[in-house]
Amino acid sequence: MAISMYQASIPVFVRTFGNLSAILKKAAAYAEARKIEPRVLLDARLAPDMLSLTRQVQIASDTIKGCGARLAAIDAPKYEDKEASFDELQARIAKTIEFLNSLRPEQIDGSEDREITIPTRDQPLKFKGQAYLLYFVLPNFFFHVTTAYAILRHNGLDIGKMDFLGKP
Amino acid sequence: MAISMYQASIPVFVRTFGNLSAILKKAAAYAEARKIEPRVLLDARLAPDMLSLTRQVQIASDTIKGCGARLAAIDAPKYEDKEASFDELQARIAKTIEFLNSLRPEQIDGSEDREITIPTRDQPLKFKGQAYLLYFVLPNFFFHVTTAYAILRHNGLDIGKMDFLGKP
Repeated sequence: MAISMYQASIPVFVRTFGNLSAILKKAAAYAEARKIEPRVLLDARLAPDMLSLTRQVQIASDTIKGCGARLAAIDAPKYEDKEASFDELQARIAKTIEFLNSLRPEQIDGSEDREITIPTRDQPLKFKGQAYLLYFVLPNFFFHVTTAYAILRHNGLDIGKMDFLGKP
Repeated sequence: MAISMYQASIPVFVRTFGNLSAILKKAAAYAEARKIEPRVLLDARLAPDMLSLTRQVQIASDTIKGCGARLAAIDAPKYEDKEASFDELQARIAKTIEFLNSLRPEQIDGSEDREITIPTRDQPLKFKGQAYLLYFVLPNFFFHVTTAYAILRHNGLDIGKMDFLGKP
């Protein structure tokens, strides 16, 4: 008995990205109710050299679609990073979840020792599949979703930890 | 071949908490160099009704020591939440890591189906061990460490994603 690579990745991503979708719906409603120009929230950031809300969502999407594709040894869908509204971010999340849900456990399971190479600005990062998931993808994914949450909290959105965690 | 409950928990916690320790060392040095009263950073928060940096570290500690103890079916060490300096937060992190490192894989492995009950202000949350780890502990832990990071970034500390992820 142990956790499969599929169990530790795809359903975790889908659950948390669904929670982010619900948070962004609240953000869009908040902008409308308070007559806040949506771009103010979409472009908000916690420091001048941190990434905006929109980029946090895009990178979270890239992190998990890239993970699903690499573990399954298939090509990830390419998205153009042109989202400029809450509706477009919702569409980005929906197609990311749709891709993840198209992956079957048997494509992901057994990828613990798969060689994974991540291109970076400097040297490429090299991992085995399991270390890639546990030490790179999960921290990165939660980092960007949490930062999106924090940007919205910092800008007055009334959300709490249970919005982030979702219903058990 | 699959991921053991131990592999998906203790080393992941230890790695990320070690990264947080290094980030807090940079924060203490930054406070000293810029003549910032340490309490300003320790009490900093991203919204008036969000928790301070100190509380983020304490709750991250509680999350992972509680997880290690619950999965091993032993009592977690109790810490008093009295940390009031960077040095005391470092000591909290060190004793948390020491406790986690005292847990052996054979105490944690096989806890996938263990019944876990988490007291909350409302109804207690009930999980099986695997769902507790994947859907509650890991998101919560990364949430609080990321928020600690974001508080410090928002307050001008020069850190980047690699400080959060640590060396692969």
